[in-house]
Amino acid sequence: MTDVLTYRPEPAELAYTFGGREPVRRVEPGTLVELYTEDCFGGRVRDVGDLPSVMCEFPYLNPVTGPFHVEGAEPGDTLAVHFVEIAPARDWAVSSTFPHFGALTGTHTTATLHPPLDELVWRYEVDAAAGTVRYRARRGDYTVELPLDPMHGTAGVAPAAFESRMTIVPDVHGGNMDTPELRAGVTAYFGVNVPGAQFALGDGHCRQGHGEVCGTGVEAAMNTVVILDVIKGVATPTPRFETDTALMSAGSARPLEDAYRMSQHDLVTWAASLTGLDVLDAYQLLSQAGEAPVGNVCDPNYTMLAKVAKQYLGAARAYEGMHERLRAAGSRYLSSRGRR
Amino acid sequence: MTDVLTYRPEPAELAYTFGGREPVRRVEPGTLVELYTEDCFGGRVRDVGDLPSVMCEFPYLNPVTGPFHVEGAEPGDTLAVHFVEIAPARDWAVSSTFPHFGALTGTHTTATLHPPLDELVWRYEVDAAAGTVRYRARRGDYTVELPLDPMHGTAGVAPAAFESRMTIVPDVHGGNMDTPELRAGVTAYFGVNVPGAQFALGDGHCRQGHGEVCGTGVEAAMNTVVILDVIKGVATPTPRFETDTALMSAGSARPLEDAYRMSQHDLVTWAASLTGLDVLDAYQLLSQAGEAPVGNVCDPNYTMLAKVAKQYLGAARAYEGMHERLRAAGSRYLSSRGRR
Amino acid sequence: MTDVLTYRPEPAELAYTFGGREPVRRVEPGTLVELYTEDCFGGRVRDVGDLPSVMCEFPYLNPVTGPFHVEGAEPGDTLAVHFVEIAPARDWAVSSTFPHFGALTGTHTTATLHPPLDELVWRYEVDAAAGTVRYRARRGDYTVELPLDPMHGTAGVAPAAFESRMTIVPDVHGGNMDTPELRAGVTAYFGVNVPGAQFALGDGHCRQGHGEVCGTGVEAAMNTVVILDVIKGVATPTPRFETDTALMSAGSARPLEDAYRMSQHDLVTWAASLTGLDVLDAYQLLSQAGEAPVGNVCDPNYTMLAKVAKQYLGAARAYEGMHERLRAAGSRYLSSRGRR
Amino acid sequence: MTDVLTYRPEPAELAYTFGGREPVRRVEPGTLVELYTEDCFGGRVRDVGDLPSVMCEFPYLNPVTGPFHVEGAEPGDTLAVHFVEIAPARDWAVSSTFPHFGALTGTHTTATLHPPLDELVWRYEVDAAAGTVRYRARRGDYTVELPLDPMHGTAGVAPAAFESRMTIVPDVHGGNMDTPELRAGVTAYFGVNVPGAQFALGDGHCRQGHGEVCGTGVEAAMNTVVILDVIKGVATPTPRFETDTALMSAGSARPLEDAYRMSQHDLVTWAASLTGLDVLDAYQLLSQAGEAPVGNVCDPNYTMLAKVAKQYLGAARAYEGMHERLRAAGSRYLSSRGRR
Repeated sequence: MTDVLTYRPEPAELAYTFGGREPVRRVEPGTLVELYTEDCFGGRVRDVGDLPSVMCEFPYLNPVTGPFHVEGAEPGDTLAVHFVEIAPARDWAVSSTFPHFGALTGTHTTATLHPPLDELVWRYEVDAAAGTVRYRARRGDYTVELPLDPMHGTAGVAPAAFESRMTIVPDVHGGNMDTPELRAGVTAYFGVNVPGAQFALGDGHCRQGHGEVCGTGVEAAMNTVVILDVIKGVATPTPRFETDTALMSAGSARPLEDAYRMSQHDLVTWAASLTGLDVLDAYQLLSQAGEAPVGNVCDPNYTMLAKVAKQYLGAARAYEGMHERLRAAGSRYLSSRGRR
Repeated sequence: MTDVLTYRPEPAELAYTFGGREPVRRVEPGTLVELYTEDCFGGRVRDVGDLPSVMCEFPYLNPVTGPFHVEGAEPGDTLAVHFVEIAPARDWAVSSTFPHFGALTGTHTTATLHPPLDELVWRYEVDAAAGTVRYRARRGDYTVELPLDPMHGTAGVAPAAFESRMTIVPDVHGGNMDTPELRAGVTAYFGVNVPGAQFALGDGHCRQGHGEVCGTGVEAAMNTVVILDVIKGVATPTPRFETDTALMSAGSARPLEDAYRMSQHDLVTWAASLTGLDVLDAYQLLSQAGEAPVGNVCDPNYTMLAKVAKQYLGAARAYEGMHERLRAAGSRYLSSRGRR
Repeated sequence: MTDVLTYRPEPAELAYTFGGREPVRRVEPGTLVELYTEDCFGGRVRDVGDLPSVMCEFPYLNPVTGPFHVEGAEPGDTLAVHFVEIAPARDWAVSSTFPHFGALTGTHTTATLHPPLDELVWRYEVDAAAGTVRYRARRGDYTVELPLDPMHGTAGVAPAAFESRMTIVPDVHGGNMDTPELRAGVTAYFGVNVPGAQFALGDGHCRQGHGEVCGTGVEAAMNTVVILDVIKGVATPTPRFETDTALMSAGSARPLEDAYRMSQHDLVTWAASLTGLDVLDAYQLLSQAGEAPVGNVCDPNYTMLAKVAKQYLGAARAYEGMHERLRAAGSRYLSSRGRR
Repeated sequence: MTDVLTYRPEPAELAYTFGGREPVRRVEPGTLVELYTEDCFGGRVRDVGDLPSVMCEFPYLNPVTGPFHVEGAEPGDTLAVHFVEIAPARDWAVSSTFPHFGALTGTHTTATLHPPLDELVWRYEVDAAAGTVRYRARRGDYTVELPLDPMHGTAGVAPAAFESRMTIVPDVHGGNMDTPELRAGVTAYFGVNVPGAQFALGDGHCRQGHGEVCGTGVEAAMNTVVILDVIKGVATPTPRFETDTALMSAGSARPLEDAYRMSQHDLVTWAASLTGLDVLDAYQLLSQAGEAPVGNVCDPNYTMLAKVAKQYLGAARAYEGMHERLRAAGSRYLSSRGRR
């Protein structure tokens, strides 16, 4: 039997950092958590007239739900988070440009003397039944439907070394990786840095392009179901994802080639250890069989993933089959609710 | 009727630069060219004992076939190159590490004090009928089949400004972009910088992972069929690709985020001009609907693509339907040969 | 009259983050603090046989002395820190390579498959009277004297947005900027993010080359004298330094060109506001008259400074003459002790 | 006796590439050349109303004088170029912003959606006797004198591998390094890639800040005197400079940290070979004694130098004393003309 916890944060409970926070709940390993996450604007941007720079106040941006203390998780262990379901909580979502934020604008760090680009908000209609979101141009009447593909931009644990990081930052603790690969059906693995791991989650997107080039996805509050579990005595150096068919490693750094290097390095050495391949043999195999999904190219660190189909790695099984077990538990839960 | 030219270069005819060469042939716009390309090692690396650093001599690396002078192509025009067919010319292919080359090693520019990684060669068996290549570990007995997915790493025209560039360099003239997106069925567009455009092609890969992380793909000689055509009076600022379902722009630069920026910037502004969307509206649309396939993260410039499904851009038609016309001509050719 | 506080931390009082710590002392604005800082190895590396990777335990690296709560400092104010004296506390100092740390090696982020470079320690003799440190080769008998030029690698305040950052990280709160420009005679300005500013200091170097290419300077415990003061109602976006003859802005980011951009952008806009020059006029002036001292090219963010001689900025006076006042107070203190 | 050649190019003789050009003159090793270089705008921007984007036509930018074929220089040799004198040819000079060029603006590669910054020209008065240039604000009446410190932004030889590169590009062949360190009194060393080396020179600056942040220096035509000589059988991997007191290596790459790495790597290994120090011992020594002057942070590659005072390298003598010999010859020439 899986424990089930339902948690919907009060506004005052929302967190703006990974690390430095008291847990909102303590759960046993294996607990399934039904939770609610607010959107990256804290729900304050509801229509095209609501400019984020006016409605939102630094540093109260990109709130996360949590942290959850997972009993028994200790530094050196791995936290497994299986994403059972990610469902938009409203029938609308928003996206925007934001002054000096995004990939095609001068920013705080890629500092230029240009004034900011226009700050614009786009409102999307979300049709969960049809599985679509509707884009509408702001300066014309063009409109088009895009597939709904819900994901969480921000997920992670408390960092090491007594650090506390803004939720907008992705790094080896997870955080704001902003990758469309973090969708339902995935098990994410995070190295545990502090007792209880302190997992938190937020920044749902109804969908997102590769790199989140303008700086935001189709931002939405989410009703999300995860299962939290612990792998004792196994360290995880950087966030990893597993699906039924693929393994992935995430790298978050600047410049972007370092995010690429970190993710590929981790996947090469992980694949070598899973398969018994020599490291250079694994390097060669991934050079031909590997993928490199882009996460974000706009956040304080950029994120890239290295990805490989499990079928190319023989009989290797990651984390002693944790994904398969959690996947099965998630399926039972969904079936029992008549949701899949 | 389509003109057909068959051309197989003598070794002495191979080129090692884009620009600075006399054309090997002159063709009329619309000509279909059946050509042969040697592999990036000039065919000298045939088995695991053939080390590239021994068998190959700088700068005689990465030979290309061409250049072809396309009559009537002038600076300011666009050269369209439709890839009808890319077929491995042998039943084997090779890949290798190379001293101080690749993404997970110190290099000439990311200069470190480390000695080079081991130089190793992997030989792949190519089964064109089955549509596979077979990987074999060098330091163990692991073996696995990967899908055959032929592509050209290097394709482009003579650069502007009287430049001549090594074939290993990708830039706005094309060159060594090393993207798996350059496969059969694609029409590539290059801005013309010199009379006749001077198109050349090489560096076939039976397949390649994203980023070509070890520095080489599954390197193979190819029998390739292209159709060369010209779009008069239309400039193309950076290489673009079109398939039946997608549009792509390529960016080649360092650091990698600049390759991303260049490719996304071109696709945003191109999409805006094709659809009539405001530039910020196009920026938003591509932020949610766009992809970012990684080309190489190992060459003198890194290459990324920005990609979007045509279905999200309404009724827009690129380059006055050039792709559709060349695609049809290519299909007729293949049908007439009984090859599709 | 200047208040004087003398503070020598117990080992257990040393801090390893900026932010997230209780202050060790509370001082009034204008207080002169005589303090002791331990070296970056916590004093555990004392000779060439003491390997840092053995003697030091993550995250107990790069300890800082502090934080000091400066009464009345509030977010939006500026903390002024005048460096009166920086004196090596011992007659020896050490430097080392460290596995996967430094500019000419693969690192955690510039991830490669190379094993680490050899870990070596160099011990320097410090002759404060002669004003020299003596380098001795480890693998030969070459030795040479270099000028003593004491500085602090790490200085800063608590970060904004509830963050807590490892002391090894430089960012807009200061931190591990590792610039030789932070020597005695300088007034450093930091934007205040939390009540009391929470200033801390450490990582003394007897001297350091530009970029700290191997990852460490001539690391030494220091007896240092600073004066802490507050400029109310004036914000400082990134650390700035002032000497009798120059103004400087620091930028910390990756890639290195962003550190350059941030520092030059701040100095251009600061110079414009000090002089009344149009921003493009200031851009031009600094393009011809500006300098760009390199701090570090090895830490989690790289640091560069933008620097300009005050003489080129006319009668402009920064921060209402704070540097001149603190400089005078520092001189009186040194004179009263017979130290200058 | 030193051969003396005087050469003033006709406009049609100016070159816009390194490589791909016939020599304008052939000289024996040891020849002293009195030459004239036009400014980077080809002399067409003479006052504040002359906008570069209007007056200059791509690719006719940044002309160089040459190339000079030095008899006997062969691939694998080193060309030594001693700068005897660099004297402004006019009593005015100009600088400007240029659309999408410079460090604090979106550019072709750091592609943004911003419109360009204003294009402005600044005219400087040059007072060679006083040793000053006078800056005048465009949007106010501020004016200030800056020291005259003449240099050449662009100097180099034909590249390897049949390449021809725009003069605006710096790379291992030299080119547009834009470093203030290339002033009179310096001997520059370039690896020879083609017979005769094919040396060319241009882009004089009356002075330049570090990084050339706005994209241009104080641009001026120059009357320059160099001595060209050859060191047979000694290769030089990247441009190096020698003064009476210092050795320098140049690195040109993106991102900027790679320019830093290349330059430091070359100086570390060069210093090790000159002194017999172990490479890690040299790494340590330069980590404490080395400097890192910034060249440009605006050109297609960025340039940094690594620099070390000869006094820290013992009795080492570079290139068998070539600098001392050419320096003496240069001094004799200047004395004979009564110019020093």
